[in-house]
Amino acid sequence: MIPKNHPRYHSLRVRESLAAAARSGLVSLEGLAAHGRGEAFDYLIGERTTASAAEAERLAAQLILSAVRPVFSVNGNCAALAADEIAIFQKRTGVAVEVNLFHRTEERMQQVADHLAAHGVEVLMGECERLVPLAHDRGLCLPEGIGSADLILVALEDGDRCEALRKMGRVVIAIDLNPLSRTARLATLPIIDELTRTLPAITEACGTEMAGDLHTLAASIDNQKFLADALREMRERLA
Amino acid sequence: MIPKNHPRYHSLRVRESLAAAARSGLVSLEGLAAHGRGEAFDYLIGERTTASAAEAERLAAQLILSAVRPVFSVNGNCAALAADEIAIFQKRTGVAVEVNLFHRTEERMQQVADHLAAHGVEVLMGECERLVPLAHDRGLCLPEGIGSADLILVALEDGDRCEALRKMGRVVIAIDLNPLSRTARLATLPIIDELTRTLPAITEACGTEMAGDLHTLAASIDNQKFLADALREMRERLA
Repeated sequence: MIPKNHPRYHSLRVRESLAAAARSGLVSLEGLAAHGRGEAFDYLIGERTTASAAEAERLAAQLILSAVRPVFSVNGNCAALAADEIAIFQKRTGVAVEVNLFHRTEERMQQVADHLAAHGVEVLMGECERLVPLAHDRGLCLPEGIGSADLILVALEDGDRCEALRKMGRVVIAIDLNPLSRTARLATLPIIDELTRTLPAITEACGTEMAGDLHTLAASIDNQKFLADALREMRERLA
Repeated sequence: MIPKNHPRYHSLRVRESLAAAARSGLVSLEGLAAHGRGEAFDYLIGERTTASAAEAERLAAQLILSAVRPVFSVNGNCAALAADEIAIFQKRTGVAVEVNLFHRTEERMQQVADHLAAHGVEVLMGECERLVPLAHDRGLCLPEGIGSADLILVALEDGDRCEALRKMGRVVIAIDLNPLSRTARLATLPIIDELTRTLPAITEACGTEMAGDLHTLAASIDNQKFLADALREMRERLA
């Protein structure tokens, strides 16, 4: 048991629940290691939503409200960490939720979908096709989901898929604690914040923000600013 | 399979091999998450040995050559990551190797020892006693090993044991990628570098460095300098 007055109580509880999810197979072992990596970056931004991230979360709400076919791409870590937050977020925004895994097996695809469904998420299911040009299985997606989405929200994933989606002309919002990652650098809008803080913040902002033209809005976003802000926060923490 | 052209191929391969070690029980799930935290800090020093870390590795060689009873305390992550490097290091320095685990069971103790032995490491075995004043099982050690060592090399472990060993007057070298960790801050000599880079560097330095008086040498080491150097490197990386 972690004492409640432990300064890193929340972070340690989250890690415990992810380890349990790894035991059940929901989270891959590689996903557990990736979570540790995220923990380090969260520690460096002080385990709180910075003012800059809060601004990115409001912009994310605007983009999502402006999209015609927004899709949230969910992996094992996302599902294990934030199934309840995803359900509330989906109810407020009507975003489609599609499962996309790096360590993909049909069994794990179903396990993640079942876990989300058990928490009230409506999960898009169907016949996947290799519609995103990638060497690995994250290229597989649903024609009626990521395959035809104008906006894709990705979280806790590494590298190349964000780049491929951007080259396909899609608007990509990336929730990623590492401001140096390829995903964060190449996203239309990087949100350098922890997932279970980010989703409720976007959900709440959807109640006050306004829709506009998706691509005009996307073009006006300076993703470098959000990266620079996060890097500055981290440098201060390391001073 | 990780594509060979992935920019972080080596780091991802290491993560994969640790995940395999977690499947076999050699590495604990908590150890896997901890590895991810280390990865993030390694990324921040550029996944290379800095000049400052190289200096620490030469000093480590001096300390080890000067010690009468140097012991390397090895846990599951260490064994999984660097069994070959530990074997070569031991052959060159004659250091005793003792297994010490946070998530300790007799079965895992034996499993880690067997893994090391299979890679050519001579592992100290015997009847453990609670010789280090700690509430948890890392306080258990061998009277003829850590119990009577004048120098203890620890790697990839968190917190309080380093403090307890220092209070007992032992010289502690800590291999730890996080310069903000308690282990790194309290060690006689913190080496802010990755394990499989560090061990060969110390092994090589043992061929050129000279022995001296252990405690005089230890007292001359400014551990704050190595921490400050690493923090500066990380800030630069985040600039």
